[in-house]
Amino acid sequence: MKGLGMYIPTFADVEAAAVRIAPHVHRTPVLTSRFLNGLTGAELFFKCENLQKAGAFKARGASNAVFGLTEAQAARGVATHSSGNHGTCLSYAAGRRGIPCTVVMPRTAPQAKKDAVRGYGGRVVECEPSTSSREAVFAEVVAETGAEFVHPYNDPRVIAGQGTCSLELIADVPELDAVIAPIGGGGMISGTCLALSHVAQGVKIYAAEPEQADDAFRSFRAGHIIADDAPETVADGLKVPLKELTWHFVRSHVTDILTASEEEIVEAMKLIWKRMKIVMEPSSAVPLATILKNPDLFRGQRVGVIITGGNVDLDKLPWMRG
Amino acid sequence: MKGLGMYIPTFADVEAAAVRIAPHVHRTPVLTSRFLNGLTGAELFFKCENLQKAGAFKARGASNAVFGLTEAQAARGVATHSSGNHGTCLSYAAGRRGIPCTVVMPRTAPQAKKDAVRGYGGRVVECEPSTSSREAVFAEVVAETGAEFVHPYNDPRVIAGQGTCSLELIADVPELDAVIAPIGGGGMISGTCLALSHVAQGVKIYAAEPEQADDAFRSFRAGHIIADDAPETVADGLKVPLKELTWHFVRSHVTDILTASEEEIVEAMKLIWKRMKIVMEPSSAVPLATILKNPDLFRGQRVGVIITGGNVDLDKLPWMRG
Repeated sequence: MKGLGMYIPTFADVEAAAVRIAPHVHRTPVLTSRFLNGLTGAELFFKCENLQKAGAFKARGASNAVFGLTEAQAARGVATHSSGNHGTCLSYAAGRRGIPCTVVMPRTAPQAKKDAVRGYGGRVVECEPSTSSREAVFAEVVAETGAEFVHPYNDPRVIAGQGTCSLELIADVPELDAVIAPIGGGGMISGTCLALSHVAQGVKIYAAEPEQADDAFRSFRAGHIIADDAPETVADGLKVPLKELTWHFVRSHVTDILTASEEEIVEAMKLIWKRMKIVMEPSSAVPLATILKNPDLFRGQRVGVIITGGNVDLDKLPWMRG
Repeated sequence: MKGLGMYIPTFADVEAAAVRIAPHVHRTPVLTSRFLNGLTGAELFFKCENLQKAGAFKARGASNAVFGLTEAQAARGVATHSSGNHGTCLSYAAGRRGIPCTVVMPRTAPQAKKDAVRGYGGRVVECEPSTSSREAVFAEVVAETGAEFVHPYNDPRVIAGQGTCSLELIADVPELDAVIAPIGGGGMISGTCLALSHVAQGVKIYAAEPEQADDAFRSFRAGHIIADDAPETVADGLKVPLKELTWHFVRSHVTDILTASEEEIVEAMKLIWKRMKIVMEPSSAVPLATILKNPDLFRGQRVGVIITGGNVDLDKLPWMRG
């Protein structure tokens, strides 16, 4: 913990999270596809967090943070900045506990994302689409409400919550050789590292990232965090950089980080929609894209694949562009 | 049976089908959505045949027909005419038994449908897009191969097979007030009538149909089969008319037939994709569309909703048209 300046969650925190969030999240199903097994030569086990409450695994971390608050903290509510699933999921969790939730979002964020936060009872406060505006507006919100800040991923409560996903996966599918999940800020991967390094130490952990937002890939090779400014990728959940806490887990426990092109991601996404009949986000297709790209790495292996979320704009599917 | 000229399947046939097809089909899950329950005021239980083998409930009827053949019959193979899920599913079932399957299809049928038949090992024989050409070509195929004709729905083996779906539904969700399924030729509805009239007699059975292909609705009111010539609807699995055997079940057991407009069907389809994160066909959305249209009929009721299939062209989603 020295030098990190933050509490590093332990396996006991994951176990506590599992108990704490159980009434508020789904134990999501694990699906398989004979077709995709044939195509990859691997045995794939898809952990379907797209079927999670509020449509994403982030309901786990958000619920763990919200339901771990004292009554006094809870009365002041929670706040975050996120134009993605974390904002929606924090609003969901706060709504379940009946406490206020404020999400700071650029005014340019998609209407659907604002509606989703409001749909669960949260308040959206708009900022300009710049880091300085976001920070200023967020500081105002916290000063005014005293709300507890729940970071989308660089938060021990959030990471411990995300760890419950792999805990379920390994319970449902013993004897996995590897688990692969997308990496953006690294919350899911960190939770996976935390859980598996205790209950399934031999299991390799792969992170999958878009080539066009490969900051984690380059950080992993460089040995220190590299953050890019506003990368562009269809996998829009994966644009954010690693932070100190997630970097701690990534550097210590991840076997490798694999990347895929935009085209490969979209192709994998269509393949999953078509063959598995599930709606998931582009971000969730990155793992399959990298498996298809690295067949020798996965052939003959039993691989857990985390489908991270299902919140996609049906009117703007990536293969409809142009 | 008098006057019908065909064997009418019995509940014993459904029970036999359940045993016969068990190794070849999925026991599909039943999903629920708190959001859709809130929206409709009903408790909805979605039986997900979009997750069935080959992507549709028709794998049940086709498997029952194929695996019920004698060795001598099986050696000559099976044949059908279908540009929809039945052709794909018959090919799937024949592939599982390792026997020949021929599907006669208009040359204008979507390439994806031809590919799907071939993907499971079946042979596609093309005809002109007219009834006379189809009948002539089909007669040739049968004369040449001696193949067993498996009609898409007007076949006792097929209806008994489809009946296994509701049998599973009622076992998983006891105390249903109603079951609703789409109606085209009436195979699924007939199987549902056959199963439920034996194991759950109090359960109301609703059939849901597109307004633009409402021949079953009008038949039900007129008291005799009305067949339309080439109706046009986004719910392309529901264009075919009732036949003698399915009409027998519809007239005797169906509580009512409800209809929905094209717009209502597409809206219900998007709603299911968005909130339940599953990929299903426009035809499968017709039941929810009619539930939303008739709230008083379903409010407070426990309703089984059969999602019939998930084979949709991702490049031509109905809300992308125009």
